Amino acid sequence: MITVLKHNATPEQIQHLIDWLKHLNVDVHVSHGKEVTVLGLIGDTSRVDMELLASLEMVSSVKRVSEPFKQANRKFHPVDSVVSVGDVKIGGGHFAMIAGPCSVESEEQIIEVAQSVKASGANILRGGAYKPRTSPYAFQGLKDEGLRLLVEAKKATGMPIITEIMNIRTLDLFEDVDIIQVGARNMQNFDLLQELGKTQKPILLKRGLANTLQELLMSAEYIMSEGNENIILCERGIRTYETYTRNTLDLSAIPVLHELSHLPVVIDPSHATGKSRLVSPMAAAAAAAGADGIMVEVHNNPSCALCDGAQSLTLAQFAELNKKVNRVREAIR
Amino acid sequence: MITVLKHNATPEQIQHLIDWLKHLNVDVHVSHGKEVTVLGLIGDTSRVDMELLASLEMVSSVKRVSEPFKQANRKFHPVDSVVSVGDVKIGGGHFAMIAGPCSVESEEQIIEVAQSVKASGANILRGGAYKPRTSPYAFQGLKDEGLRLLVEAKKATGMPIITEIMNIRTLDLFEDVDIIQVGARNMQNFDLLQELGKTQKPILLKRGLANTLQELLMSAEYIMSEGNENIILCERGIRTYETYTRNTLDLSAIPVLHELSHLPVVIDPSHATGKSRLVSPMAAAAAAAGADGIMVEVHNNPSCALCDGAQSLTLAQFAELNKKVNRVREAIR
Amino acid sequence: MITVLKHNATPEQIQHLIDWLKHLNVDVHVSHGKEVTVLGLIGDTSRVDMELLASLEMVSSVKRVSEPFKQANRKFHPVDSVVSVGDVKIGGGHFAMIAGPCSVESEEQIIEVAQSVKASGANILRGGAYKPRTSPYAFQGLKDEGLRLLVEAKKATGMPIITEIMNIRTLDLFEDVDIIQVGARNMQNFDLLQELGKTQKPILLKRGLANTLQELLMSAEYIMSEGNENIILCERGIRTYETYTRNTLDLSAIPVLHELSHLPVVIDPSHATGKSRLVSPMAAAAAAAGADGIMVEVHNNPSCALCDGAQSLTLAQFAELNKKVNRVREAIR
Amino acid sequence: MITVLKHNATPEQIQHLIDWLKHLNVDVHVSHGKEVTVLGLIGDTSRVDMELLASLEMVSSVKRVSEPFKQANRKFHPVDSVVSVGDVKIGGGHFAMIAGPCSVESEEQIIEVAQSVKASGANILRGGAYKPRTSPYAFQGLKDEGLRLLVEAKKATGMPIITEIMNIRTLDLFEDVDIIQVGARNMQNFDLLQELGKTQKPILLKRGLANTLQELLMSAEYIMSEGNENIILCERGIRTYETYTRNTLDLSAIPVLHELSHLPVVIDPSHATGKSRLVSPMAAAAAAAGADGIMVEVHNNPSCALCDGAQSLTLAQFAELNKKVNRVREAIR
Repeated sequence: MITVLKHNATPEQIQHLIDWLKHLNVDVHVSHGKEVTVLGLIGDTSRVDMELLASLEMVSSVKRVSEPFKQANRKFHPVDSVVSVGDVKIGGGHFAMIAGPCSVESEEQIIEVAQSVKASGANILRGGAYKPRTSPYAFQGLKDEGLRLLVEAKKATGMPIITEIMNIRTLDLFEDVDIIQVGARNMQNFDLLQELGKTQKPILLKRGLANTLQELLMSAEYIMSEGNENIILCERGIRTYETYTRNTLDLSAIPVLHELSHLPVVIDPSHATGKSRLVSPMAAAAAAAGADGIMVEVHNNPSCALCDGAQSLTLAQFAELNKKVNRVREAIR
Repeated sequence: MITVLKHNATPEQIQHLIDWLKHLNVDVHVSHGKEVTVLGLIGDTSRVDMELLASLEMVSSVKRVSEPFKQANRKFHPVDSVVSVGDVKIGGGHFAMIAGPCSVESEEQIIEVAQSVKASGANILRGGAYKPRTSPYAFQGLKDEGLRLLVEAKKATGMPIITEIMNIRTLDLFEDVDIIQVGARNMQNFDLLQELGKTQKPILLKRGLANTLQELLMSAEYIMSEGNENIILCERGIRTYETYTRNTLDLSAIPVLHELSHLPVVIDPSHATGKSRLVSPMAAAAAAAGADGIMVEVHNNPSCALCDGAQSLTLAQFAELNKKVNRVREAIR
Repeated sequence: MITVLKHNATPEQIQHLIDWLKHLNVDVHVSHGKEVTVLGLIGDTSRVDMELLASLEMVSSVKRVSEPFKQANRKFHPVDSVVSVGDVKIGGGHFAMIAGPCSVESEEQIIEVAQSVKASGANILRGGAYKPRTSPYAFQGLKDEGLRLLVEAKKATGMPIITEIMNIRTLDLFEDVDIIQVGARNMQNFDLLQELGKTQKPILLKRGLANTLQELLMSAEYIMSEGNENIILCERGIRTYETYTRNTLDLSAIPVLHELSHLPVVIDPSHATGKSRLVSPMAAAAAAAGADGIMVEVHNNPSCALCDGAQSLTLAQFAELNKKVNRVREAIR
Repeated sequence: MITVLKHNATPEQIQHLIDWLKHLNVDVHVSHGKEVTVLGLIGDTSRVDMELLASLEMVSSVKRVSEPFKQANRKFHPVDSVVSVGDVKIGGGHFAMIAGPCSVESEEQIIEVAQSVKASGANILRGGAYKPRTSPYAFQGLKDEGLRLLVEAKKATGMPIITEIMNIRTLDLFEDVDIIQVGARNMQNFDLLQELGKTQKPILLKRGLANTLQELLMSAEYIMSEGNENIILCERGIRTYETYTRNTLDLSAIPVLHELSHLPVVIDPSHATGKSRLVSPMAAAAAAAGADGIMVEVHNNPSCALCDGAQSLTLAQFAELNKKVNRVREAIR
């Protein structure tokens, strides 16, 4: 950690600061320049409160030179992590094609979608049981009944399943769920993360709407520091001033996260764009940028003339998307 | 709710959509124009999924004409709400001056700060016991011991106390806490909001880093829809591209929230700016814009030469700030 | 244009507003609902000031139902526009591979880079002569001498050239330039746009750092409304809170712009990411999302050990990128 | 400037970099740590391209320790600058109350507004002649005729006038204008800034929609480096994800700019909020935060029932606002 002091810091103040830092078991290397004095902090700086330090009157700026995440860091784990879910592997060259409906609605629906997306090439089934909604008056999902139906679809097709948890008190109900999803709004629900860290369930951790990639990795670290290393990172769009798309999908997250971390990276173009006609080009782009997986919403309402064109793909559109993604993956090898 | 259809929507599609909407018990008023057809949706539209509607191929756009929040809405409750906390009132002309340390550190610390800020004009004591931290390796607060010390300070000074909850499972420990704070990261932790809605505790609800004012009011609605109407809204800075301040304090939130809602609005300039020298001007500005209260961090380390200038104000700086805020409040009457 | 009035608007106010709108030669279709009154504005609404209308006390909201851009609009020009630059075509299936150094530095440099990138598959040469710099003390480019050297490279290789204009007073110097670039900071320099609209030069128009896609199309409209239809749109990253990359590359701009407009869309991953190691995955992603071209920075300093890894690609890295982009383009056909 | 090198930088690479930096006449102070090597760059680092340096493979990060602006910097000019405009002074305790219509429409209009706002306490008259508009089809202002009418109003009332320039080629027409405004969209139109730097006209420089405070000061530096020190900085709202207000007014800009620079700071709450009912609280807040002036839009259409509540204040509302702002200024002394 590098701390740059202001030019008007007095020798007494500087000594004060150095004593305090040494008290925290950090070695301090002082370098006096003409305009500024620079302190190099060496050793375990994890106990140094960077924001407090930065806010001191005498301090011009503070900079970490080592990333604050350890277990998620590629430096300490150079090889790609591979997360195993039943027979499916994610990361290190293995690709997750996750598909399924936004919400689980009925046994017929989830099983029909599951069979169809499996036949088209999906290897993991998604489906919402607990749905986070901005409004308390909106449909919140079938909840435990939704979980039960998802497990039925798993039995019927053999596909591993992924669904979102919203409250740690429902954890027992997720026993047969293969991957637990932590939604964007809960990315910094630290108590939830820590509890999930005590399980060995694979966790798909979505980036929050206004969170940096480093914060995403710090949240992964919360889970890993409790012992669970089965983390899949997921970019699903960030909030910007642009309103034409629901969010702005940040595909540079893929190479950046691969550089900083060994964890696999999955992209969710359905939630990011909010429009089904944008899902296919963004899925292809994600594959071209090196994603370890794609998660898309697919529905099966052949009689519902309304739903074509909504956020979810039809079964046929998904089959096309899967072929295209595979061709692109082949092209970048 | 107004739904604008694309010019190439077929009569069959339009009839399909109208039937579906009527099925949801919504009256539909159709208006055919040259370029577009507009559907006016009348009645209780809360069951209509606006995002689904907007994502239909045939739909150009959807617009709510009535706000989606009801109990938090000034339209249905024109008079300012006043939240009572012991003898202290907030809103409707009553001002909350909330002060205290970032974290509760020791009995001596919290009592000394409490006595001093009370003497300087504060009427509510703040102090962090459970601290949300980006890093799992950072200090997370004294937790239940911090809560206990805060209650000691309440007994010693008679001041009502406010502190943050991070996990609903600790709710029992908040019995003697007067106002429960929901932090920015938990603004859309809907399960937590609903549980707090089942209590009658005053709740200070902070705006999330990337949440709109409407989303803040929807989260207040989550609490109110469960029966708890004692809500205080709090603006504490939003995330933008500007890096000189920690966040960008959006003071226009004050008149906007007062226009949309009857709930009191408190401003936290300490977290928004991250620099104590910016706290006083922003507190004065908040008062000038009509805030119902200010919440600031104050510390008492006379021996700690380091801490002057950090995010927290000294006891003397707080006394000055309080006088200034009172003069500004007088000026705008 | 749809105007939603507040429920407390009086009949006199409504009549006032209707009279005023009719005075602007707009037909008004009134629809009274229980909660709101909706005015449908029909005809040429381009003279109606939408912001003024929206700011009226009695107005709840205003919504355009037809896009405010005409000549750039795909509705009125369903077929892809193809911009021709010498023998090179851009758009409608024709791909622009634009490469070259950030700044033109010397005749040797620009000619060597030009020959190399041409051999590797580039079909247009880029090079900065006038450089917009945040600081007045930074290097501003070789200016007219840079233009001259770029023209030399064009003669030597036969490649069309593109370079940025910063001031309309230098337009005469751009006679031999094939594509004039308008930089992100000048996207809303409306006087410059109008002057360029009076030429027939192909214009590459970059999206501003904080501009919406609709604003980009309105700026294209500024040029087109003066008679120049040779416009190429360029996404080069937008400003967000994320700091790991220089900007956030918004690749959903590609399908969105293709949906809204007939103009070709080129992506600049070099400026968006600021790091050469991110350029290749983002270029491949852009191709997968359907871009009509890529513009990348390439340098030729074999002796400069420093420069490897900087924003610019080496000649060898560009050759690899070009192959990869071609394979991806093949894959999505 | 501090440059932190990655731990895998080789001694040869480091020596290469040091040689290159010395070649730029910068002294380099090397500090080897366990994890990283830190280079302290001493002397005139203005010629060092910080972005290039940061993008080198071997470099982890680069940090300026001295601000890149010199003439705008308070360090080198500790006393507040006072800009004089006729008898009116701005900065250093002198307050500018700038008021007038959005656009100059007619001689009657501009003179009536001028007389009224002068009587209510305004000391500078604003009025748009050249109007930047997103759409080429929107009203662009009365242009030179607008300028002429503004000068008439100046003669009639003795008030200094301010209006916006959009194109340096019209500079001659601004001879009788007292303050030339550079709009948000032109904040980084560097050629325009440099030309204005060659005059001695006071310049009101508006912050761009997505520009940092440091970039605003760098643009002031562009003007000052050419010899014109009469700069007034203006915050007018930045673009964020919040859509209820037109922009987000960043009032912390006031104390921050006062800390970094000696230049006066004026706030424009009309454009920032887009709603007249938000202008008065934001103007009071700006005064409380220490602004050196306020610029607001005022109209005079007593017969136009429509216009009440629009972005502009009525004459009576302005009179109230002026009194309130004065009381707040008194309160913070």
